Amino acid sequence: MSDKGILIVLSGPSGVGKGTVRKAVFSRPDAKFEYSISMTTREPREGEVDGVDYFFQSKEKFEQLIEEGKLLEYAEYVGNYYGTPVDYVKETLEAGKDVFLEIEVQGAKQVREKFPDGLFIFLMPPSLAELKNRIVGRGTESEELINNRMEAARKEIELTSMYDYIVVNDDVERAVDKINAIVQAEHCRTERVIDKYIRIQR
Amino acid sequence: MSDKGILIVLSGPSGVGKGTVRKAVFSRPDAKFEYSISMTTREPREGEVDGVDYFFQSKEKFEQLIEEGKLLEYAEYVGNYYGTPVDYVKETLEAGKDVFLEIEVQGAKQVREKFPDGLFIFLMPPSLAELKNRIVGRGTESEELINNRMEAARKEIELTSMYDYIVVNDDVERAVDKINAIVQAEHCRTERVIDKYIRIQR
Repeated sequence: MSDKGILIVLSGPSGVGKGTVRKAVFSRPDAKFEYSISMTTREPREGEVDGVDYFFQSKEKFEQLIEEGKLLEYAEYVGNYYGTPVDYVKETLEAGKDVFLEIEVQGAKQVREKFPDGLFIFLMPPSLAELKNRIVGRGTESEELINNRMEAARKEIELTSMYDYIVVNDDVERAVDKINAIVQAEHCRTERVIDKYIRIQR
Repeated sequence: MSDKGILIVLSGPSGVGKGTVRKAVFSRPDAKFEYSISMTTREPREGEVDGVDYFFQSKEKFEQLIEEGKLLEYAEYVGNYYGTPVDYVKETLEAGKDVFLEIEVQGAKQVREKFPDGLFIFLMPPSLAELKNRIVGRGTESEELINNRMEAARKEIELTSMYDYIVVNDDVERAVDKINAIVQAEHCRTERVIDKYIRIQR
């Protein structure tokens, strides 16, 4: 009887603070998301628990899962695989719970293809948001520096266009407030809830 | 330099409690919206102030404003006109402030045509939201009663499809929380903010 949950994907350029924001999201007492645990082929480190920190898996099994389309997204780093098992995500969404993924931009691209109605949030470094104000400011910066910044900005803007929302990470708690507001709002979006009311008529 | 504000339109069937919710929105100390004052041709009542409760206007002037396209929406009730002056709305949005309209569904339809990128919120009576649960419940209700409810539900669902969000008015403060979350989220929507970042590059 319950409605389906929303797949929430938090991504952004490396170094923007995705992990910090994700931890702050889950440290709120009223956090209602399920965190999707990644699968990896690397060895567990001291103290890491299978099914808590990661799902630890052999390389052979991981490659089999790739073949079978059982990974929502995956990537290879330094000879090891990292990925998101799709079954957990699907089952949790079906159970009416929101699933929260914090992944790299390449992974987010893969997820968008498989879950077009996921909720994609781009965490934006404040430098880009402030760029405009800085550049139109005193005019003391060299043309080369401005051009370099423009180029960096251009690349990041290209990335953002596939996301539904842009949240500037100028302050972690403020970013968490915005993410929570976005999720709350999305649960009221007509396209997500109208089916429920249309089903009434059948 | 400031970004444009968002036109927020709260509407819904009569009797749903739009006025109560709108007052509760504005009674919050952190309310950051500008309320759009309606224009009317009816006589001011005892204590009503021009430019506070309404803009009071002659019938001739009101009809001239209609002709000139100076009303965002209008309707006639019992021989008097009621409408929303478009200039105030446009100037306030240009100044970077959000404008809040609380209007009937027919007016909201007119506004959608003129401001397709407005933020349209449908306030839903809880009866419709609960309808499903009730109907699939004990099965004690007569077929006629169920059919009547279905017909009422069908009409309301048709209305909602032009709105961006559906907020159930089961509790006034909860509805206000949702409206505030929706507005906060919309300020992060990629389609609303990406132009700002693209402008950086020019």
